[in-house]
Amino acid sequence: MAKGLTKRAENYSEWYNELVKKADLAENSAVRGCMVIKPYGFSIWEKMQRALDDMFKETGHSNAYFPLFIPKSYLSKEASHVEGFAKECAVVTHYRLKNDPDGAGVIVDPEAKLEEELIVRPTSETVIWSTYKNWVQSYRDLPILLNQWANVVRWEMRTRIFLRTAEFLWQEGHTAHATQEEAENETKQMLDVYAKFAEEWMALPVVKGAKSPNERFAGAEDTLCIEAMMQDGKALQAGTSHFLGQNFAKAFDVKFQDKSGQVEYVWGTSWGVSTRLMGALIMAHSDDNGLVLPPKLAPIQVVIVPIYKGDEQLQAITERVKPIIQVLKSKGISVKFDDDDQARPGWKFAEYELKGVPVRLALGMRDLESGQVEVARRDLLTKEVQPLDGIEDYIEHLLADIQTSIYQKAFQFRQDRTVRVDRWEDFEPALEEGKFIMAHWDGTPETEDKIKELTKATIRCIPFDSELEEGTCVLTGKPSSRRVLFARSY
Amino acid sequence: MAKGLTKRAENYSEWYNELVKKADLAENSAVRGCMVIKPYGFSIWEKMQRALDDMFKETGHSNAYFPLFIPKSYLSKEASHVEGFAKECAVVTHYRLKNDPDGAGVIVDPEAKLEEELIVRPTSETVIWSTYKNWVQSYRDLPILLNQWANVVRWEMRTRIFLRTAEFLWQEGHTAHATQEEAENETKQMLDVYAKFAEEWMALPVVKGAKSPNERFAGAEDTLCIEAMMQDGKALQAGTSHFLGQNFAKAFDVKFQDKSGQVEYVWGTSWGVSTRLMGALIMAHSDDNGLVLPPKLAPIQVVIVPIYKGDEQLQAITERVKPIIQVLKSKGISVKFDDDDQARPGWKFAEYELKGVPVRLALGMRDLESGQVEVARRDLLTKEVQPLDGIEDYIEHLLADIQTSIYQKAFQFRQDRTVRVDRWEDFEPALEEGKFIMAHWDGTPETEDKIKELTKATIRCIPFDSELEEGTCVLTGKPSSRRVLFARSY
Repeated sequence: MAKGLTKRAENYSEWYNELVKKADLAENSAVRGCMVIKPYGFSIWEKMQRALDDMFKETGHSNAYFPLFIPKSYLSKEASHVEGFAKECAVVTHYRLKNDPDGAGVIVDPEAKLEEELIVRPTSETVIWSTYKNWVQSYRDLPILLNQWANVVRWEMRTRIFLRTAEFLWQEGHTAHATQEEAENETKQMLDVYAKFAEEWMALPVVKGAKSPNERFAGAEDTLCIEAMMQDGKALQAGTSHFLGQNFAKAFDVKFQDKSGQVEYVWGTSWGVSTRLMGALIMAHSDDNGLVLPPKLAPIQVVIVPIYKGDEQLQAITERVKPIIQVLKSKGISVKFDDDDQARPGWKFAEYELKGVPVRLALGMRDLESGQVEVARRDLLTKEVQPLDGIEDYIEHLLADIQTSIYQKAFQFRQDRTVRVDRWEDFEPALEEGKFIMAHWDGTPETEDKIKELTKATIRCIPFDSELEEGTCVLTGKPSSRRVLFARSY
Repeated sequence: MAKGLTKRAENYSEWYNELVKKADLAENSAVRGCMVIKPYGFSIWEKMQRALDDMFKETGHSNAYFPLFIPKSYLSKEASHVEGFAKECAVVTHYRLKNDPDGAGVIVDPEAKLEEELIVRPTSETVIWSTYKNWVQSYRDLPILLNQWANVVRWEMRTRIFLRTAEFLWQEGHTAHATQEEAENETKQMLDVYAKFAEEWMALPVVKGAKSPNERFAGAEDTLCIEAMMQDGKALQAGTSHFLGQNFAKAFDVKFQDKSGQVEYVWGTSWGVSTRLMGALIMAHSDDNGLVLPPKLAPIQVVIVPIYKGDEQLQAITERVKPIIQVLKSKGISVKFDDDDQARPGWKFAEYELKGVPVRLALGMRDLESGQVEVARRDLLTKEVQPLDGIEDYIEHLLADIQTSIYQKAFQFRQDRTVRVDRWEDFEPALEEGKFIMAHWDGTPETEDKIKELTKATIRCIPFDSELEEGTCVLTGKPSSRRVLFARSY
């Protein structure tokens, strides 16, 4: 274990908290529930953003920006939306401070009270649909395919860095369409984009499916999601894509004239992923030595540590390493050459393990002479000696291999821990063992609530790939036609 | 004039407002003072962000993210900072809404009052320096070179899209250093980065200089700025870089142990540019036909409009154009082929002029036969016929030429309108003619205030390149050693 990091087996939750801090990813701020994302953590988030943004643009979306503040009355316009979002939120009531007449700093100026309070956006459907109203008259104005990268605030009572914070960063897509079919296809398309991103970039296998009505987004007709398994067997919802039907169009009176001249309400979708993905990334792959990062998201992909005594040796190593760095960079591989003479190699090894750098090269005078280098692989913690000649190609392939290998490991882990449960007495024991449970459910919210109450497990989703199969509900024995995914979750 | 756009000479201010709207850049939102940045406007901002972000990283900075909310007491910790920023700001006082017992939507829950009010950040020095306190112990922890891209809120009474809005987007750099010299060098370096960005990307010539004490950032020892001339002769501050001395380190008790073991306060800088640059870009270059965009920031650099009747002709043109588009794209040039059959070519021409697309190709059957194409250049509104063979290289050079030419035009405009004024009676007439005035000033805030009161002009900066020269203050006749730049401003 690096630098006194708690082991996962001892206390998974503590391991996570410590790792976030020790790996310099983020920390709690003085403002309750709000986090500071530190440069190393932010550079991972930037890579996620870049990859997702490219994928959004490839599927025809553009970015835009809508206001941070939402007039209070907007939240009430969509009936179920207000129930879901108007509860715990930050409310701006005043717009001025003044000097305290008693001389103690500043106080809120009671005369600067807003006529209508403003809510710091918990999500932007309302402010965006109130804008779309002015943008849409005819079918020629559709579809609108927008995304925004933004901060949002939900006044959560129990917060945890990356997983649940009062303020978090996210992207929210908001699209408007002429037909139900087009909106439904968009909803599915964006879920596929998220799944592809999770699997190809984060090396994170996900289950795609639909939420049960209980777990739907407030204001959606249907919520699709991707669910991932963490190393403690809990599920983490990694992204959602909502088919909004005409709910927000009706709430904000967004209509259009179709080709035949008829006036109809617009169909909508929204979809989002957030800095929560950072939590997923950490919890899915990392180990007792620290972070394990898939190379595609690692800020530093290769670190080179010279083993030397004195300037002369350092210079010899540097000269041999320089062209290697150049070739690696030209391949788009990020490399750090750590010649800091204030730290010992062993300390550096532990540090880069903690930070999840996928490949480490260590190189001393003897290696120079024999034309070899020690290559350490973070995910497997293995070392091997490789010839220096051609090391660049070797590393390129190694990085690709690590990316695949991390995915495969997580995939196998999930496979091994996904079980079919048919008898109620087997249900909770499987949860205690950290399993994903595929079980029959009678389709009622009451049964789902009851199971949650008894076991803390919820229906994570109705997986798209769960086959039709006659069965009986694991709790009530009532008939069911397909299994759904139950798990405890973050 | 495109689509009824007001002429600049008639009403410059109205021209600007209309252009922002008609070119689909942005619009006012339902929330007072907050704007919606539309996809076309946002794509320009994204290009600015990308270029600036690359420059920040090249100069050794990393991105991070700090909380949106600032505890009210933090603002009071730096004496002059509170004077400057604690006035007009959005104050969060509550964290929950509840259903109105009278049944009319939601109301603020009086029981969910925050113990200490939170301010929506108007700038982040306080929250960042309160964090740096925990990050810095030794000289080994310095420098800290961070930037964040964020939204900020200042409750301005009179707002104007891009130029002055309640919420705006910006980047704010915040650095911490072991020595005064290093912090001063950083302040200058980042001003140079801004000037380079303005000139090379925005094609906007700027005057680099220092603010007079009156115009300094609240909490800074020195504020450097770049000032640009708009087409009405007014100045627009396009970026600022502040040397903070040890002010925030003292306010938040940020100390470090230097190499000799002595404990010292840390030296700081901060620097920022905002969506205000969008306003500068529009007002500096655009004309009565619409936007004029420098190619490096144009979302679409080349538009190709086919002139055709019927599918067969369109197909012939498309086939000829396809490989051209491919070659242009491989050169990193963004191209749009507009084969929409719902709009006439003339309408399209006006539309792309309005949106500032730098180069337009129009291509009909006769052109195909003669192997030629009409090339229209947005900045000069000129057209010429060019051979289709080799058109890709021609366009590449043309785009570079347009970039330079837009800069040169703005530079010449500013040169022609910058005058030296030595007699007070010449001062206001020069302002009325929309001039930048280089004049002597006695160095007192009183004189600066008086001049502002009399003429609405302020000292935009003390230009770095203004030579030492004996003279007398243009208002008071007192001795002065160098000229400063006076202008009315946005």
